[in-house]
Amino acid sequence: MPLNDSQKKLIADNRIDYSDLKAVFINTTLKSASQGQSHTETLMRDAIDLMEGCGIGVEYIRAAEHDIAFGVQPDMREHGARADDWPEKIWPKVEAADILVIGTPIWLGEESSICRVIIERLYAHSAQTNDKDQYVYYGKVGGCVVTGNEDGIKAVANTVLYSLQHIGCAIPPQADCGWIGEAGPGASYGDEQDDGSRAGFDNDFTRKNLTIMTFNLMHFARMLKDAGGIPAYGNTTS
Amino acid sequence: MPLNDSQKKLIADNRIDYSDLKAVFINTTLKSASQGQSHTETLMRDAIDLMEGCGIGVEYIRAAEHDIAFGVQPDMREHGARADDWPEKIWPKVEAADILVIGTPIWLGEESSICRVIIERLYAHSAQTNDKDQYVYYGKVGGCVVTGNEDGIKAVANTVLYSLQHIGCAIPPQADCGWIGEAGPGASYGDEQDDGSRAGFDNDFTRKNLTIMTFNLMHFARMLKDAGGIPAYGNTTS
Amino acid sequence: MPLNDSQKKLIADNRIDYSDLKAVFINTTLKSASQGQSHTETLMRDAIDLMEGCGIGVEYIRAAEHDIAFGVQPDMREHGARADDWPEKIWPKVEAADILVIGTPIWLGEESSICRVIIERLYAHSAQTNDKDQYVYYGKVGGCVVTGNEDGIKAVANTVLYSLQHIGCAIPPQADCGWIGEAGPGASYGDEQDDGSRAGFDNDFTRKNLTIMTFNLMHFARMLKDAGGIPAYGNTTS
Amino acid sequence: MPLNDSQKKLIADNRIDYSDLKAVFINTTLKSASQGQSHTETLMRDAIDLMEGCGIGVEYIRAAEHDIAFGVQPDMREHGARADDWPEKIWPKVEAADILVIGTPIWLGEESSICRVIIERLYAHSAQTNDKDQYVYYGKVGGCVVTGNEDGIKAVANTVLYSLQHIGCAIPPQADCGWIGEAGPGASYGDEQDDGSRAGFDNDFTRKNLTIMTFNLMHFARMLKDAGGIPAYGNTTS
Repeated sequence: MPLNDSQKKLIADNRIDYSDLKAVFINTTLKSASQGQSHTETLMRDAIDLMEGCGIGVEYIRAAEHDIAFGVQPDMREHGARADDWPEKIWPKVEAADILVIGTPIWLGEESSICRVIIERLYAHSAQTNDKDQYVYYGKVGGCVVTGNEDGIKAVANTVLYSLQHIGCAIPPQADCGWIGEAGPGASYGDEQDDGSRAGFDNDFTRKNLTIMTFNLMHFARMLKDAGGIPAYGNTTS
Repeated sequence: MPLNDSQKKLIADNRIDYSDLKAVFINTTLKSASQGQSHTETLMRDAIDLMEGCGIGVEYIRAAEHDIAFGVQPDMREHGARADDWPEKIWPKVEAADILVIGTPIWLGEESSICRVIIERLYAHSAQTNDKDQYVYYGKVGGCVVTGNEDGIKAVANTVLYSLQHIGCAIPPQADCGWIGEAGPGASYGDEQDDGSRAGFDNDFTRKNLTIMTFNLMHFARMLKDAGGIPAYGNTTS
Repeated sequence: MPLNDSQKKLIADNRIDYSDLKAVFINTTLKSASQGQSHTETLMRDAIDLMEGCGIGVEYIRAAEHDIAFGVQPDMREHGARADDWPEKIWPKVEAADILVIGTPIWLGEESSICRVIIERLYAHSAQTNDKDQYVYYGKVGGCVVTGNEDGIKAVANTVLYSLQHIGCAIPPQADCGWIGEAGPGASYGDEQDDGSRAGFDNDFTRKNLTIMTFNLMHFARMLKDAGGIPAYGNTTS
Repeated sequence: MPLNDSQKKLIADNRIDYSDLKAVFINTTLKSASQGQSHTETLMRDAIDLMEGCGIGVEYIRAAEHDIAFGVQPDMREHGARADDWPEKIWPKVEAADILVIGTPIWLGEESSICRVIIERLYAHSAQTNDKDQYVYYGKVGGCVVTGNEDGIKAVANTVLYSLQHIGCAIPPQADCGWIGEAGPGASYGDEQDDGSRAGFDNDFTRKNLTIMTFNLMHFARMLKDAGGIPAYGNTTS
């Protein structure tokens, strides 16, 4: 949904310098771009707009556009995969990011299969360490955006956020947002309705949660960057 | 693990004719065959051996050997996919089966991404109906086999079994089994240990659960086949 | 919601004798009766009406009206509990039932704490066996009814149904139903709306799922009762 | 398990002043003290020892020792409950705490019913705000300790940690730890084994995770306290 006046004012009134921060948003819709618009992207775009408006450099990745191999190693080409876009096209952006947001649709109440591919590939780097001997994701913060036509935001967010904190990201308060409609089949987020309105665009709850998520990710990324990461005491790998 | 004497006796003493029943086992390990042995297959093989021993015709599919497209339509080639083994190589076996068992490893406490691909593709057929106007999976029974080196059998089984019943399979009592080791990294199912033994092969709990799962799947498949499926009253799609 | 004409016709046209079957519905709302109407009960009542209309004897239990002890033993008074209504007031009804349906509200995306109390107490009997040396729940079928004002039907149903099958109930296809509204706070099931309508009462999807769940529970209970339970082969406890 | 030399050295070498920080550990074992030792407490004690050793003031609460009402209001006595220890005995400690750790056993793969009671009661305060108009839990950090004899640490931790971040706590990296044994029934954490050893006490993985969790909770609590909480921009309730 287009940012509303309150959200635009948050950008206009922002006085914190975020220009040294980077974010990566990975959309795990099952559809490639040629298969049509991603409802999840429609919602993710608001968080991207807010971050970019505040000066953060954002990379957006639609995973289905890439040939990402199945597996739990950093480069699956070394393990028999015919091709693998992860090591060269995706990982460098993830590694450089201070903020990592995963977007996913809901299928049968769960995140998409491509979302799990991404989680498995992120996990593949969990043996790597930073220069403080902490897991390589230490210092990053993680969030989650979910859409479906019915049911499952929390179920999905709890596995996605759990995975992110498990590998080393910090999770700020209320680090997820999403939209679903009433029980049953129906419009997906942003679908044009009979009355010309677009599904979910008038949902203040979703808008508010997205805004809170976005700023909390920014606050924590700022705090961790300024602190030089998380103190390396009691939490190193050796 | 090789069937033990009790299990062999169950085969030898079986007096029920299962020769008209078919089962399909789909292994969703992330590894293709060239990447090595699947620990999940090692456990699935016992259930297969029990069913085949009792006369059921079993198809075993290692999903990673196939080029299965992402998506939620029966044939993704019609929706832009470059290739899709599902409609011709997988679906006919699923459609013909009375028993459907999904095997999966555990990654970050959840089923594999390939397992979710399979669930999404099964779901893609949920609009199809049988000749009684019930969902096409009515009359089939579903089960689940899970392995990991630590933690997650129940979490995985509950999403897999939920998905199967949601699309129309019946779930007998105790329709899952699995093996995990103690918290922490360690051997996977069937790995050779320092003392020459193989991890999990001495686990009576896993063996018992596998046996119960297998026979309950067979009992319910027999019962449903003999009854001509589920009565079509109050549960048709229209 | 009041049964509609299609549902009433299913009752009127039913030709199967269910009069020897018993069902127990346990509502795990957090509210005692004095705290007001249970939205979950409002939905459960439809399934109860359908079953009673077809001749099944139904017991309805609102767990919050009872003093059920925490614990995983059949009678917690023997383990230090001050009081425990489970062994005398709840368990005999569960034990006698052919069909067991658990209803629960959603809190933070999960089933209620009282729902987990019930699951723990059901589990406490899992060491008991029937006269065929199968777990005591063998021969019963299980279902689940869920309501919330937003998000979580599937997440809740998958843990509840998993628990029921784990202890020995069979789960028919589509053995759950529920209602939630659009993402965000809002009306609960059956709440009177500004326009005088009641939330969710016009939801055909919820109504259809409830009907299918109810009849599938009845079909499987009928089938298992007629078969004298599940054959005792390969699935006994010893 | 008793702290080992590495853990003792982390206490001895600590140079950060934590004396102004408070932590509350809530153990949600189903057993009251008279019913015996809590395995979950045995593991929680290590995290408590580390925090106290570093100067943090720790409150330990065994929820089963209290009469906590079911419900989602701050004081259930105002809503018909006969008694409710939450508002006077539990909430003031939670409110004062910088660090909130929930410990729970696993039953059927899920957190205990008492754990869900605690989550529901924490949630009951989610409409309250701090003096910056943020949710009242902003500025606190949350963690989770889980024990069982088999399977479920991650499934439990993901719902518990999700709930904590949902109501406003920050979740540091790797904010959970736990112990489970191999698949099947068996010893619980700390149980004396045949050889005199105590189950899980030699598990380096559990010990390491507990240590990392504890120090990450401390680092984030220190960081948030020093920053005066989370900046109130884009994340207030109005």
